[in-house]
Amino acid sequence: MAVPPPTRPRRLLPLSLGLFQGALLLFFAVFVTYDKPSAQAEDASLVANQLYGIFPLFQDIQVMLVVGLGLLLTFLPHYGLSALTHNFLLLNFSTQWALVLQGLLHRFHHGQVHLDLHNLLIAEFAAVTVLISVGAILGRTSPCQLLVMAACEVPIYLASEWVIVTNLGVLDVGGTITIHVFSCYFGLGVSKALFGVVQQPVHPKEIPIPRSDLMSLVGMLILWVFWPSFVAVLCQPGDAQHRAILNTLLAMSASAVTTVVASSLLESDSKLSPSHLQNGSLAGGVAIGAVADMAMPPVAALALGSLSAVACVLGFKFLTPLLARKLTLQDQCGIHNLHGLPGILGAVASVVAILVASKDTSRSHFSQVSPAGGNVSEVAWGQWGDRGAGGQALCQAAGLVVAIGISLLAGLLTGAALRLPCLARPPERLCFDDVLYFKIQDQAESPGSGGTDEEGALALTEQV
Amino acid sequence: MAVPPPTRPRRLLPLSLGLFQGALLLFFAVFVTYDKPSAQAEDASLVANQLYGIFPLFQDIQVMLVVGLGLLLTFLPHYGLSALTHNFLLLNFSTQWALVLQGLLHRFHHGQVHLDLHNLLIAEFAAVTVLISVGAILGRTSPCQLLVMAACEVPIYLASEWVIVTNLGVLDVGGTITIHVFSCYFGLGVSKALFGVVQQPVHPKEIPIPRSDLMSLVGMLILWVFWPSFVAVLCQPGDAQHRAILNTLLAMSASAVTTVVASSLLESDSKLSPSHLQNGSLAGGVAIGAVADMAMPPVAALALGSLSAVACVLGFKFLTPLLARKLTLQDQCGIHNLHGLPGILGAVASVVAILVASKDTSRSHFSQVSPAGGNVSEVAWGQWGDRGAGGQALCQAAGLVVAIGISLLAGLLTGAALRLPCLARPPERLCFDDVLYFKIQDQAESPGSGGTDEEGALALTEQV
Amino acid sequence: MAVPPPTRPRRLLPLSLGLFQGALLLFFAVFVTYDKPSAQAEDASLVANQLYGIFPLFQDIQVMLVVGLGLLLTFLPHYGLSALTHNFLLLNFSTQWALVLQGLLHRFHHGQVHLDLHNLLIAEFAAVTVLISVGAILGRTSPCQLLVMAACEVPIYLASEWVIVTNLGVLDVGGTITIHVFSCYFGLGVSKALFGVVQQPVHPKEIPIPRSDLMSLVGMLILWVFWPSFVAVLCQPGDAQHRAILNTLLAMSASAVTTVVASSLLESDSKLSPSHLQNGSLAGGVAIGAVADMAMPPVAALALGSLSAVACVLGFKFLTPLLARKLTLQDQCGIHNLHGLPGILGAVASVVAILVASKDTSRSHFSQVSPAGGNVSEVAWGQWGDRGAGGQALCQAAGLVVAIGISLLAGLLTGAALRLPCLARPPERLCFDDVLYFKIQDQAESPGSGGTDEEGALALTEQV
Repeated sequence: MAVPPPTRPRRLLPLSLGLFQGALLLFFAVFVTYDKPSAQAEDASLVANQLYGIFPLFQDIQVMLVVGLGLLLTFLPHYGLSALTHNFLLLNFSTQWALVLQGLLHRFHHGQVHLDLHNLLIAEFAAVTVLISVGAILGRTSPCQLLVMAACEVPIYLASEWVIVTNLGVLDVGGTITIHVFSCYFGLGVSKALFGVVQQPVHPKEIPIPRSDLMSLVGMLILWVFWPSFVAVLCQPGDAQHRAILNTLLAMSASAVTTVVASSLLESDSKLSPSHLQNGSLAGGVAIGAVADMAMPPVAALALGSLSAVACVLGFKFLTPLLARKLTLQDQCGIHNLHGLPGILGAVASVVAILVASKDTSRSHFSQVSPAGGNVSEVAWGQWGDRGAGGQALCQAAGLVVAIGISLLAGLLTGAALRLPCLARPPERLCFDDVLYFKIQDQAESPGSGGTDEEGALALTEQV
Repeated sequence: MAVPPPTRPRRLLPLSLGLFQGALLLFFAVFVTYDKPSAQAEDASLVANQLYGIFPLFQDIQVMLVVGLGLLLTFLPHYGLSALTHNFLLLNFSTQWALVLQGLLHRFHHGQVHLDLHNLLIAEFAAVTVLISVGAILGRTSPCQLLVMAACEVPIYLASEWVIVTNLGVLDVGGTITIHVFSCYFGLGVSKALFGVVQQPVHPKEIPIPRSDLMSLVGMLILWVFWPSFVAVLCQPGDAQHRAILNTLLAMSASAVTTVVASSLLESDSKLSPSHLQNGSLAGGVAIGAVADMAMPPVAALALGSLSAVACVLGFKFLTPLLARKLTLQDQCGIHNLHGLPGILGAVASVVAILVASKDTSRSHFSQVSPAGGNVSEVAWGQWGDRGAGGQALCQAAGLVVAIGISLLAGLLTGAALRLPCLARPPERLCFDDVLYFKIQDQAESPGSGGTDEEGALALTEQV
Repeated sequence: MAVPPPTRPRRLLPLSLGLFQGALLLFFAVFVTYDKPSAQAEDASLVANQLYGIFPLFQDIQVMLVVGLGLLLTFLPHYGLSALTHNFLLLNFSTQWALVLQGLLHRFHHGQVHLDLHNLLIAEFAAVTVLISVGAILGRTSPCQLLVMAACEVPIYLASEWVIVTNLGVLDVGGTITIHVFSCYFGLGVSKALFGVVQQPVHPKEIPIPRSDLMSLVGMLILWVFWPSFVAVLCQPGDAQHRAILNTLLAMSASAVTTVVASSLLESDSKLSPSHLQNGSLAGGVAIGAVADMAMPPVAALALGSLSAVACVLGFKFLTPLLARKLTLQDQCGIHNLHGLPGILGAVASVVAILVASKDTSRSHFSQVSPAGGNVSEVAWGQWGDRGAGGQALCQAAGLVVAIGISLLAGLLTGAALRLPCLARPPERLCFDDVLYFKIQDQAESPGSGGTDEEGALALTEQV
């Protein structure tokens, strides 16, 4: 098997990426500074304390996105290097791109953009949407296509987040609606527009093997452990943050146990499906985001975790095959089951929580700092003060609808753009294969590392 | 090789687990609430500071148990998915079960159980005992058996911990006696009662291969790095916590170096045994728990770390084979070498440390918060005040004896219960094999992923 | 293939290591104590706060060195166990050795050495130099040789660091010059003296396979995530630390993107080279160390990150082969590309930053605690106060020259010492092979785990 002839447009990736990096340098050189150093010793101590509060959570989130999510995607046995690297590249590209856009949009009042750890965190949240959406089209797309998708998704996310949180005043501290639901339907829209009405055949290299499932499982466990940091990092320090951490821990624990139950009941022989485990155990974390800091009893977090795990496993078993058959919708990693269904459940839960809590709770039980930063939350509080619990519940529902609507539409348009021939979609026989993107030993070594002995034996018999 | 016919009782797992999850929801709905939000701004700041103190350590411990311990158990080359998953499931099940029991036992005074991060941590400590005990019977047991074992072990641990710490006033901040010694002998008791007097033959799939040894080694390294958090999390903040961290770091560093020395000297050709490394390097962390926060010179921590590593390696080389031959005692992961021997060493060290320290130290050098939570420690202090250093030393010894006695007896009884036919012990030829529990490519892919080329070659010759 | 006959001197390793451990115990017993416990409650709270400030960063660095760096070195497919274990052993040995030397050198004023977390951290920084230098000679050296190298390198590092930071007053909070440049040229010196003028042939087992590249990539990602902690841990809390974290994050993000650009442009077919990714993405972290806490605009961090990534990739593509051809210089892991070139870039950047910043900045923008601990920094400040920005810039340059000079010379001498026959360099055919150091299934299992199917097939045909 010879190396495929170099497809022309592949120079596009380094050139455009290099151009972007140059533009970023220019933008930073002209507009971005750090906050001024604090003049007094007291301020310095304050800065140090703030740093000790946010930095460990920030690191946790970095581990989740870079190591955890990267490993989760390595379930494709011959595509591990690509999955890890593309995830890593997209995270950095999208964060930088979000920093530029945020600087231009939100902070341009005084001519200078002030950068701090909080800004970086907000930009990384924007990048998360890209990393999730990629899951729908993983393995059948080129890095160029993924970068174009990221370039489109980040500004649309920022706009959608502005509408949902700032304008509608939706409460969503863990990004259930703004991040998970949005990125899921964006990814599905891209997939639908990109792959069209032809059902993709099952590729021999997209079937996991135990070793790749193991790596993916490790990725899931890393995500599972650090998820509370993701949900709680933007909460107000104190009770709300403590509550968000506890709610997330409970929801994820319930998800883990319920996933085993649901998967065992659905599969023949009561066996477990690795993909159910890899996704269902995290479903509770997705769903809890919208209600994590609200004043609700612990049982609600447990129930939400269990429900979302059931929804996720059922989705894998029935909905994904159905969507593939009826709508020819390709969803490689099953992001609809992990981010879509639990996200919708979480949004519904926030409606219920607000209506139930309104009877005996004051505003002080809810707290949020908008992912877009700044003092948006006061606006939200003011609006809720006027609108009451019923109005707030309606807003949550409206936020969900807006998130789905914007993301589906924008995803479809973006997917259409990805069909441009210059973006070099990989040929079918080289999908799900690192050989296309990495300079590795593709002949002798590839079967030994990722392949089965059957292939090795076949190769041998051919030689014999 | 056809898939084995579905054994009937396997539906038992999801059904009983689902029932448990439902009962948990009910219990939480009726009895459990969060602490009331703090009314004043000062309190909020206090809550935030407490959170910043405990949460990073809590996350470290989660990483240890979920990722580190999980990976450590993947040394069985065909059993990685099962080891990781069963570890993860047992952690969640046991923590939830411990929360319920703690709620019922300790906190039922006011009708409501208040949940906070500290409670969760205590429950997780109870779950640790289960995760350790499993090591003795890993690979030859069904998930059902493991769950029944967890259901038995958690309440017995809570009772034993109550006797040892609350009643006897034993000082054991890192759980050397209450967790490690207890869970080791519980596990050995289960193993003895479960497997009886028939020596288990060496299974071809229980022999590690370099790839699985590598994963296990990574797990050990993760445990090694975060062990200080495990030992120090329940110490009083300030000097005692600082001392506990330093002592643990020193003990583990000495263990790491000494393990290499001992393993090299014992093995032929001065080669290292991976299993020695995977366990011996952690022995210091097990032993240091009982004395970590005591006022002793740094050299004591180093010496204890070295000694326990030597004991662990000698145990693997001589004691485990001896016990297997003489007592037909099966100890799959060698938990007696990692948790039993170093645990006993640590208990003895605490006796010595108290006797030596009594000459020039006041009570203020010792500090402990009981793993069972609450204000138990004052009771302990009061008792020591009366009993003097000699009495306290005696108590430590008594605690060790009680821990071994309770755990062995309870383990034997639990092991007998695990022989119930409905619990579906796996047939010998399917032991140590993920195929029994996971829906994976068992035919073509399994040899490629975990198998040796020998198998592949055999398959080929059979085909030819 | 029979196991090679035991080489005599291999008993040397455990015996000398055991002797060292005994001497360490003696030294600690006589000289080392902990700091006295703080007498008052306020002090205790202070200790707790300091602990919460430094301990999470300390843990991050432990993860980097033990797990991240260990995994990064597992790119050699048959040498994973050795790479992980030797890295782990050297870290512990070198830290202990540095503790002894520091105790003897710096703290011997009052007869007692006081140990705290800060001391341990400083000792670990000394150990980092050993772990980096090993990269030049990985796989062709015995553990005995590595230990002798560590025994030589640690005192030379401490001396060099004393000259550079304490005497010359060089500003280098992240160890760009004192750690990275020093250890790189020390390692290259050792390699040159050890392997002489004979070019080493390409060994069949030194070629990575996708699976080992994947593990190495995971190691890189772990290092990438936690690098800000490494750079910032010794900064003064407050603004300087915040700035160091942000600068490092920016530099590493730019490195990641630029590495993909540079590697794609240089390789045929625009493919990526795994080794470029594994190293280039970290180059920004190496370079930023000397300027991380300085008052410079964010764009400088981005530019430095991009430049150092380009230098690193170019180094791999052109410089390493050139040095191998012209100077017969062996650099197994390419440490010159990851630590040498970016380190020099970082030193130059510090000169530029000081000259530029001198126009509008006061001394308060710079802050540093010397890695050698103690109150050295005031001396440095005093010197700079006298010497002005020009003088300080000159000092930075002088520090770079001193670091390269000392390390090259000392490395060459150490390398010569490693040629002693008693140190048992492994025979060529057993280089890069775990079988030499580990008791593993070398016959049937080794090919299955690390080998290619080709080998398996070959073995089969031989049997047939």
